[in-house]
Amino acid sequence: MREEYQADLVEVGRLLVTMAESVRATLRKATTALLTADLKAAEAVIERDAEVDAIYEQVELKVADIIARQAPVASDLRRVITTLHISADLERMGDLAEHVAKTAKRRHPSPAVPAELRPTFKEMADVADLMAEKIIKLLGAPNVALAAELEKDDDAIDDAERHLFKIMLADDWPYGAETAIDGALLGRFYERYADHAVNIGEQVIYLVTGESPAGAN
Amino acid sequence: MREEYQADLVEVGRLLVTMAESVRATLRKATTALLTADLKAAEAVIERDAEVDAIYEQVELKVADIIARQAPVASDLRRVITTLHISADLERMGDLAEHVAKTAKRRHPSPAVPAELRPTFKEMADVADLMAEKIIKLLGAPNVALAAELEKDDDAIDDAERHLFKIMLADDWPYGAETAIDGALLGRFYERYADHAVNIGEQVIYLVTGESPAGAN
Repeated sequence: MREEYQADLVEVGRLLVTMAESVRATLRKATTALLTADLKAAEAVIERDAEVDAIYEQVELKVADIIARQAPVASDLRRVITTLHISADLERMGDLAEHVAKTAKRRHPSPAVPAELRPTFKEMADVADLMAEKIIKLLGAPNVALAAELEKDDDAIDDAERHLFKIMLADDWPYGAETAIDGALLGRFYERYADHAVNIGEQVIYLVTGESPAGAN
Repeated sequence: MREEYQADLVEVGRLLVTMAESVRATLRKATTALLTADLKAAEAVIERDAEVDAIYEQVELKVADIIARQAPVASDLRRVITTLHISADLERMGDLAEHVAKTAKRRHPSPAVPAELRPTFKEMADVADLMAEKIIKLLGAPNVALAAELEKDDDAIDDAERHLFKIMLADDWPYGAETAIDGALLGRFYERYADHAVNIGEQVIYLVTGESPAGAN
């Protein structure tokens, strides 16, 4: 029984890693679509979101199966419920990557983001990618110090988002309301992606230390 | 054992209803803050979000306790896991109401929303409030027909959001980028609130029929 239970957890862990890898690849491609007005990349992302959703369902079914067959308690149960939270966050990160791609597609062949904003989006995307990489590592080997780094990465994303707004709200912003709206919504997609990554970090810390996260955001 | 289990479920159900009522009241007040530039209302909403988060934690603990003590299987287990999803959606709806209030507070004493957009926001808020009311009812008595209505309500919110963009993207929009950005983000807060309400409706349908939702959005 105990052995079977461990094997079940390993299987769920593998599903989460696959999901995280897919989510990471998806945002990378969505960023390419955004910054280079690449329609094919945008469409590939939009198609691929179903993959992440399918793994999400697999995790849910597997977790229900584990609870039903193994009746875990205490820290085992905590671990199983944590996987549900993590998969929900990953699923949402996939959606947000899809939103980025959809914006790129909607504005194609024009670029959705004017040249002045591109370096800032590149920076947000790079940090978000680093966060996804850390999550993949954390899912393989929980590590409180690495999980805590995600908070600092998130601060960098928030700073970049503020910089974005500073550019768009300057008196000499030449692009009008539509481009400002797209810029603000896109900024929010990356910012939310990072928030979910922080949530996952908190779940990992909870898993390792038993310390509850300070509250979802 | 069975009796105790039923009592546990009733208690979780009560927590969810309390949470939904609080979330509903919060968005009503946030909308007042937004449409009448009412700083006190905005601050009350921001303070109250902690309440919703606290109930969310209670639900989580209670569910873990039920699984550990009762080891539910099949439809019982499904019901318990569904409550976790519903509380996560409600928690997020509370956050979104808080975002509306924070925008109102940031722009105070100016109104965050110009007169041209107010009727559309009023409409979105009214539909969102109706959706919250339906959720409170559904939590008391699951009902597939009522749950399915939430999809239509969501369509009305999406239409209103499109109308919002139409106004902001017109050539004669006089308010510049900042107000357009606020309008777009606020529109998105109401739209996301409605999306989470739809998710809850889908969870209720799943609970009653065993039919899986078509995929989270």
